[in-house]
Amino acid sequence: MSETTPSQSQITETTSRHRGFQGKVIFDISLSLDGFITGPNDSPEQPLGEGGERLHEWMFLPSGGPIRPEVDEERFKTIGAMVMGRRMFDVGEESWGENPPFHLPVFILSHAAKETLIKEGGTSYTFVTSGIENVLAQAKAAAGDQNVQVMGGANLAQQFLTAGLLDEIQLHLVPVLLGEGKRLFEHLGSEPLELEIISVIQPKEVIHLRFRIVK
Amino acid sequence: MSETTPSQSQITETTSRHRGFQGKVIFDISLSLDGFITGPNDSPEQPLGEGGERLHEWMFLPSGGPIRPEVDEERFKTIGAMVMGRRMFDVGEESWGENPPFHLPVFILSHAAKETLIKEGGTSYTFVTSGIENVLAQAKAAAGDQNVQVMGGANLAQQFLTAGLLDEIQLHLVPVLLGEGKRLFEHLGSEPLELEIISVIQPKEVIHLRFRIVK
Repeated sequence: MSETTPSQSQITETTSRHRGFQGKVIFDISLSLDGFITGPNDSPEQPLGEGGERLHEWMFLPSGGPIRPEVDEERFKTIGAMVMGRRMFDVGEESWGENPPFHLPVFILSHAAKETLIKEGGTSYTFVTSGIENVLAQAKAAAGDQNVQVMGGANLAQQFLTAGLLDEIQLHLVPVLLGEGKRLFEHLGSEPLELEIISVIQPKEVIHLRFRIVK
Repeated sequence: MSETTPSQSQITETTSRHRGFQGKVIFDISLSLDGFITGPNDSPEQPLGEGGERLHEWMFLPSGGPIRPEVDEERFKTIGAMVMGRRMFDVGEESWGENPPFHLPVFILSHAAKETLIKEGGTSYTFVTSGIENVLAQAKAAAGDQNVQVMGGANLAQQFLTAGLLDEIQLHLVPVLLGEGKRLFEHLGSEPLELEIISVIQPKEVIHLRFRIVK
């Protein structure tokens, strides 16, 4: 976190969006080359669906061990809070366990109210029932001068995209055709949305693509 | 085209596939980040659909002039024949005109027979009604020791993929979300297909992705 005071011009620039929030809202997800973020039949027993764990292999050490240190490091350096959809939470919670891999406040867009859950290692789950603008406002307040990461599922991403609430999209493109599952990009309407390529990074087994949304 | 005679080992290696064919079968297409190869409502008046011309902008010089020389050069260096679907031909023929941009024999998978059309500049259109194996065999025979490029549309690409007839996929990923149009990857069945990244090249406004299909 930077300790410097933002200049007046920076404040003017950002208060039109959310008072005090200096970061970006970044949607971040792994997807197959054919556009799926899970395989078919995702459930608490199989949160990424059949064959879908293939999409997260790049995050782990070749030994099958814990998350690659550089992945966690990058996340902690820049992300201050996260947003996720309720279905993603319901499907994933059990597998994430008592010490979830987020280590950050997570705000969950939900139809049903539920008390905040405090987990080990800095993760908390807060449920917001008053819509995407509000779940984002709470995440921004928690993120301070860091970024907000929007995690999915597909439905939440589509809502954020069509509402124009994202600054950047970061895709981890995995070289597999899953054939079936949850499709990331659909129901976006017929108005094309222009993006600008920020960076393309290709370690051996995944392609990291980062785009700025041109508003 | 090389004038050298293939060695005996090369012949043995390739005759299991197609006698004499030394090249690869490469599917090559431009698509939007959300997976569309045309915008909605493609027609002879608008072969790439509404907004779909955005997908081919990278091929042209910034002046709006002819195809970038390096794009044509790469194609001519490695491609000996092309395969396309009948609907793509019907929609595109008029816009390609009397001197089409292919300058190669093009084999069109068709339900209805039609006589071969010879155009200016080395392009010919040959219609094959006996299925994908046969349209590919004719293209391979015409390609000699060069590659066969499979062009689309989506339906043809899906048939080639599910029949296991492709060696490589080359995607020109354009940073736009079209929202609607013809989707490239669907109807592929539920058996995941593993790919291997060959190369990722990013000029300013497009990302060229090349994959080998792991059989």
